[in-house]
Amino acid sequence: MADKLEPADPDFATRLCERFRNQPIHRGLAMELVDVSPGHVRLSMPFSPEWTQQNGYLHAGIVTTGLDSACGFAAFSLVPGDADVLSVEFKTNLLAPARGQRFEFEGRVVKPGRTIIVCDGRALATGAGDEDRRLVATMTATLMCVRR
Amino acid sequence: MADKLEPADPDFATRLCERFRNQPIHRGLAMELVDVSPGHVRLSMPFSPEWTQQNGYLHAGIVTTGLDSACGFAAFSLVPGDADVLSVEFKTNLLAPARGQRFEFEGRVVKPGRTIIVCDGRALATGAGDEDRRLVATMTATLMCVRR
Amino acid sequence: MADKLEPADPDFATRLCERFRNQPIHRGLAMELVDVSPGHVRLSMPFSPEWTQQNGYLHAGIVTTGLDSACGFAAFSLVPGDADVLSVEFKTNLLAPARGQRFEFEGRVVKPGRTIIVCDGRALATGAGDEDRRLVATMTATLMCVRR
Amino acid sequence: MADKLEPADPDFATRLCERFRNQPIHRGLAMELVDVSPGHVRLSMPFSPEWTQQNGYLHAGIVTTGLDSACGFAAFSLVPGDADVLSVEFKTNLLAPARGQRFEFEGRVVKPGRTIIVCDGRALATGAGDEDRRLVATMTATLMCVRR
Repeated sequence: MADKLEPADPDFATRLCERFRNQPIHRGLAMELVDVSPGHVRLSMPFSPEWTQQNGYLHAGIVTTGLDSACGFAAFSLVPGDADVLSVEFKTNLLAPARGQRFEFEGRVVKPGRTIIVCDGRALATGAGDEDRRLVATMTATLMCVRR
Repeated sequence: MADKLEPADPDFATRLCERFRNQPIHRGLAMELVDVSPGHVRLSMPFSPEWTQQNGYLHAGIVTTGLDSACGFAAFSLVPGDADVLSVEFKTNLLAPARGQRFEFEGRVVKPGRTIIVCDGRALATGAGDEDRRLVATMTATLMCVRR
Repeated sequence: MADKLEPADPDFATRLCERFRNQPIHRGLAMELVDVSPGHVRLSMPFSPEWTQQNGYLHAGIVTTGLDSACGFAAFSLVPGDADVLSVEFKTNLLAPARGQRFEFEGRVVKPGRTIIVCDGRALATGAGDEDRRLVATMTATLMCVRR
Repeated sequence: MADKLEPADPDFATRLCERFRNQPIHRGLAMELVDVSPGHVRLSMPFSPEWTQQNGYLHAGIVTTGLDSACGFAAFSLVPGDADVLSVEFKTNLLAPARGQRFEFEGRVVKPGRTIIVCDGRALATGAGDEDRRLVATMTATLMCVRR
């Protein structure tokens, strides 16, 4: 449905990049914004042993951090310039162990709305070659648009 | 229902503490295990500006990290000594801004099972005094018991 | 938290009962409203072989129907007289086979709010005696208050 | 991912149709199986005022009934002939009012597995013409494969 989505603010990409940089957690996780379009965002972060659980895989909470940011910014790309977006709830399904050299988080607006925005997220692990991209988790998220 | 829960392994607390210490992410977040009983676990971590989103609150993914660990260890307390526990899926409801001096994460087994274990989690923010404890998020989690 | 909840409208119980009766599905399922207080509702329905899946248990979608109605009316008890309540999303955990002579659905507001209301639900199966009450499913639901 | 999915049992479609017919609730809702392939199922049901909530739309629990059946049968198409499939949990997002002449429920396996199967579901409302198909709800479901 992304082809029908329209940003409410022509400067959405500039606002979004600035907001992304202002989140301390993105620096801590070395998270990068790799792609932005209306209703769609792609983030990427390297693996680090610091964020792992007992088996050496990325902790499900860190996978969720990337998915929540991706969904949040996908929603943010569609709201007016004076609006903020808050996560109301999200659900993560852990499909495969989160091991890899890098992780990619994709957020996509499924249903835009004035108050409630519903997004889907996908987390992919990548290895040495591009052929290694594996789906490791999915998210469905409900966000709320709040006027400041 | 916690009063009816029985650990399958009498040494569950020792195993649980060891496993908790072996998760690198717990060191990174300064997460501590403050209470363990069969089917119930309480964790605590300090606030740090490193883990915040744009408004200076703890990122929802970090709140989820604490909740997922609390639910995972609550389930782990009930499984046999040769078994591992994996998160299948979880849902987080964000109820209030995650601001505070410390955060507490409580996990509780709602439904034990040989293969599937269902847990509830609660995240509380604490301020200067104990009277400030506020519920900031809840989780329901589905975990799977895996024999090694 | 139910002890702190206040109805916005003193006639909430009258409005709620009327609205409950106006839902055709409640008649079809022989669903009854057995208890109402601010932020809390209890419904009850008999077993019927019509609503079963292949094993003769109540279909998970019918269990969800009772849970969604219970959560919806729990939220409805707290909103102003000119407001409506809509389900945004809900998650059901199926904990045990839904077999029994009657089913009880309990909805409780966990977090009231002007726009977003979060509820928990519990479905219990009852047999011949009261000692048989078993928890068969839980729900967490997000609802939105809409002014007409 | 459906193109990679393989049924464990060559007679999966026969077994699936028989099982579908054996669910009393499908008769009650006039639910039909319109399409089956490995890991994918499509169901259809007519609107009936009996299943509505206060605004005359299909109750969210009935929408969930269709989505749960669609996800359950999508998973069932991939398991061995001696196995059963149980819903562990599901989450429904209500995206638009469920009004229409007919409703279609699509279930698709996102992640097959020996024990845990994850599915996505979509509910569409259709009007007088095909151009009217609207997405009214989505589901993510976790199912468990149980050997008899």
